[in-house]
Amino acid sequence: MLYEINEKAIRLENQGKKIIRLNLGDPDLATPNEIIEAAYESMKAGKTKYSSSYGETNLRERLAELHGVKAENVVITPGSKWGIFATMYLMMKTRGNIVIPTPYWTAYELIAKSLGVQTRLLRTEMEDGWKVDLDKLEAMIDKNTRMIILNNPNNPTSKVMDAETLDGIVEIANKKGVTILSDEVYGTISFVKAKSILEYNGNHKHILSNGFSKTFTMTGWRIGYIVANKELVDNITKLNQITINNVPVFIQEAALKGLEMQKQLSTRIKDEYRERAKMASKTLAKAGFSFTKPEAPFYVFPKRSGLNSEKFTLDLLDKGVAVAPGTAFGDYKEHFRISLTAPRDEIKTALEIISEAPG
Amino acid sequence: MLYEINEKAIRLENQGKKIIRLNLGDPDLATPNEIIEAAYESMKAGKTKYSSSYGETNLRERLAELHGVKAENVVITPGSKWGIFATMYLMMKTRGNIVIPTPYWTAYELIAKSLGVQTRLLRTEMEDGWKVDLDKLEAMIDKNTRMIILNNPNNPTSKVMDAETLDGIVEIANKKGVTILSDEVYGTISFVKAKSILEYNGNHKHILSNGFSKTFTMTGWRIGYIVANKELVDNITKLNQITINNVPVFIQEAALKGLEMQKQLSTRIKDEYRERAKMASKTLAKAGFSFTKPEAPFYVFPKRSGLNSEKFTLDLLDKGVAVAPGTAFGDYKEHFRISLTAPRDEIKTALEIISEAPG
Repeated sequence: MLYEINEKAIRLENQGKKIIRLNLGDPDLATPNEIIEAAYESMKAGKTKYSSSYGETNLRERLAELHGVKAENVVITPGSKWGIFATMYLMMKTRGNIVIPTPYWTAYELIAKSLGVQTRLLRTEMEDGWKVDLDKLEAMIDKNTRMIILNNPNNPTSKVMDAETLDGIVEIANKKGVTILSDEVYGTISFVKAKSILEYNGNHKHILSNGFSKTFTMTGWRIGYIVANKELVDNITKLNQITINNVPVFIQEAALKGLEMQKQLSTRIKDEYRERAKMASKTLAKAGFSFTKPEAPFYVFPKRSGLNSEKFTLDLLDKGVAVAPGTAFGDYKEHFRISLTAPRDEIKTALEIISEAPG
Repeated sequence: MLYEINEKAIRLENQGKKIIRLNLGDPDLATPNEIIEAAYESMKAGKTKYSSSYGETNLRERLAELHGVKAENVVITPGSKWGIFATMYLMMKTRGNIVIPTPYWTAYELIAKSLGVQTRLLRTEMEDGWKVDLDKLEAMIDKNTRMIILNNPNNPTSKVMDAETLDGIVEIANKKGVTILSDEVYGTISFVKAKSILEYNGNHKHILSNGFSKTFTMTGWRIGYIVANKELVDNITKLNQITINNVPVFIQEAALKGLEMQKQLSTRIKDEYRERAKMASKTLAKAGFSFTKPEAPFYVFPKRSGLNSEKFTLDLLDKGVAVAPGTAFGDYKEHFRISLTAPRDEIKTALEIISEAPG
């Protein structure tokens, strides 16, 4: 229902209604000027042609350096979502099942469903601090399990997985011969240290999905990447050749500019979102919602006993506030997700409307 | 082998070798300045966010107007190739087979293969003016045939289908209940009138694939579109939501600028490519190659009896000229494809090298 809410919000806006958009992880901050200028210079320099389906060599090399891998382990994708789709499309051809801890980013299951892949959802609870139960995970894996999808830091909870739990998940995956696909798109802007799957990845069995959207405020530019073994990188490239062909080179050069500014930009984003999270936490707690403290941008995932999240969300949209229902992230009908991706005064107004909403 | 040749050409160039690139339909002409400026203005205006997976309303409306359909029949895709992949992915889930006249654009069969779809290739011959034999087509269709893929004007032959043959194909498709997917990406820059599938399309059963790459010299920007019935447009949009999400809005606004300039730009492109085709035809005929006269940009598809096109192509690459082997377009090992997408002096040099090449 996440995408339906978004299309409805766009329709309402096109009708001239003012909607405070807290339904997507799309930052209100503008893409930094330096990145826009880099794209413009690149276009003017003629970087407007077909190019390699692997991505540009200089960008792959820079990313390889940042992650301590080789350029041959990196492929550039039009958004991290495309990388996740491509990985699942290629790895799940022989079918089997995948395990996903919930709450999860909607796209994982929609992709699985589209590909005819069976998903096994491993429920975690707010009351347990969203911790994955390792025994339950192990029991859920059978001989047809091909993949575990992790999202760390997590969307929608903004929870960072503790190192011991991640160690335990990797140990189980390695023992059972299951690949971990780790979506770490909020990693570089996390408020607390989030351990990367690549720290365990001597043999490149596991896969990192990452993107430029969140760290560099480049959501609509559609650029991300996969770090994996060379075989999968080559296969994603072959899939790119028959689908998206290449990410525009001027967008890749803009992303490269972003990487140069990474430290400065991620500090700015972290500082701003820490403040927003503090503000939201205060108002939501006062209004009687429960939630875990956000450890990363951009989300809070509050709960109220007895809430009907889909009705609540649609009612809020009529009042001019777009949020996402908990049911978009698994079986969490008492929860909803607020994305703190609007200017502080808008968030403040929205929080007041949310606090006063019945249900 | 088309993509392997391209990746090898890029590698050689990265090693500092000079390669005359006549292997892709990627025009040497620059993207018009007005289009680049439109993209830049759009970025600066903040059109850098997530947006609708249908595409922008103003662009869809403009395209609908051009094609005489409704905006709900148009979905914007990151390149026409993505639209073709998405259409086949969605329509061929229940399997079955597709019929493709050859020579064809490589991507069609690579997509089919990736999706596990059976292809039935309907061979046409240079000696028959690349004409589709309607009786053979009808005999090839069975109860499991879901789709016929046409490419008109054709890549690699630059042949425009005569109206009578197209009438006949549509009649057979309608009788048998088979959908036609018509790739008309060279349509607006054709030297002779090419009839569009939409001229037959009262009930929107058939599908148009089109793009901005060729007409507006925007190959690397990755923007195209599908015109189809609302149901398929909605389903492609849902697939977009779990894969590419959206084409960057600033790229859509650049494409809209291109549409404003369509007449002027397409005249310029046609004039230039008519000259190039004339030049190539003269040299190739003198060197003893046979071919049909190009009726559209960008290709010539010459033949020489006894040619081994893959060996010929690899040998040419070592001599600094990249072309594509005939085998990349079906079972045409005596042919190769020259893409006239380089400045005239480079084409001239390349044609001399080609004329002198053994094999």
